[in-house]
Amino acid sequence: MISYPNGKIFRQANIKKERKQNNIKYKAGNRGMALEDDINISNSFYDEKGLCLITKRPTPINVVKVDYSKGATITNAYYEKQSTTDYNGIYKSRYIDFEAKSTNNKSSLPLSNIPKQQIEHLKKVITHGGIAFFIISFNTRNEIYFLEAQKVIDFIKNEDRKSLPYEYIKENGHLIEQGYLPRLDYLKIIDKLYF
Amino acid sequence: MISYPNGKIFRQANIKKERKQNNIKYKAGNRGMALEDDINISNSFYDEKGLCLITKRPTPINVVKVDYSKGATITNAYYEKQSTTDYNGIYKSRYIDFEAKSTNNKSSLPLSNIPKQQIEHLKKVITHGGIAFFIISFNTRNEIYFLEAQKVIDFIKNEDRKSLPYEYIKENGHLIEQGYLPRLDYLKIIDKLYF
Repeated sequence: MISYPNGKIFRQANIKKERKQNNIKYKAGNRGMALEDDINISNSFYDEKGLCLITKRPTPINVVKVDYSKGATITNAYYEKQSTTDYNGIYKSRYIDFEAKSTNNKSSLPLSNIPKQQIEHLKKVITHGGIAFFIISFNTRNEIYFLEAQKVIDFIKNEDRKSLPYEYIKENGHLIEQGYLPRLDYLKIIDKLYF
Repeated sequence: MISYPNGKIFRQANIKKERKQNNIKYKAGNRGMALEDDINISNSFYDEKGLCLITKRPTPINVVKVDYSKGATITNAYYEKQSTTDYNGIYKSRYIDFEAKSTNNKSSLPLSNIPKQQIEHLKKVITHGGIAFFIISFNTRNEIYFLEAQKVIDFIKNEDRKSLPYEYIKENGHLIEQGYLPRLDYLKIIDKLYF
């Protein structure tokens, strides 16, 4: 268990449970889960402190069959593609929307990791006046970057490449401070860029 | 199929598919699904017209078992309680967050329909500067109201009652215009109240 400064408690068991659950999905390489955990825990911390309200969208699942004799147990279903992004919410009256990506690649983030509809979604967020970005983890470097969605949109528009180079992210993005609580202090970067 | 004014097409088949899917969940009485459909279709219409970006959060499902021999079929899972609200997004740079409730009751909306954590969530949305409300359908009256979350919070705080009376909703809320497209023109009410 982690004791929060304001006395509330965040149960390690929940983190473990969530990790276990999500592992099912991310079995292939287990990429992304550590990053997702860190963001979720950071968001819970921010929420407890009353700083912002940012939540993870549940993974969309298409339910085919439910067994009511077993207390509404879903017995046949499959994962659907997320057509939006993983996270959204509100901070200082501004709409926040972002996607978390993680790679074991040292030199770039393959653009195949970013579905077209996510780019379209983030473009719309910008059009409507929201704050849109990516959180990108280079696992082998232990470096996590905040990169404005516009920078990704510009790159895709101007370059005919299959991946986003590490150097581009480093130059155009912002290294996120990693700590105990919050684990990833990305609000600090939003403050610097937008307020 | 519905032809949209801007030429894009919204497939009736998708609506039917979604309805079918969701029916599984809402088997008990099938309440709420028609309302949810109408809101989803209105949101798609608003999105196509570039007016706002408001999406439904997927229903959270706890996955227990996945069968990879069947192409990642989920074979054991169960529904989790939604701890936030059904819808959120952005309109004219403002953060939007709301919950849809539907009742066959003619004279009131039972407050047991609104979990405490949804009220807590909407309180936070207001604190952070967002626009928080309910869309409440009185099915037997064919009347759908827009009611600011603050009105519900006030009622719960001041009254020791188990349901929100129809008269209270009528007096403090705003009747939503029902039409072809959008089916429920709730943005019109947001315009009147907040812009």
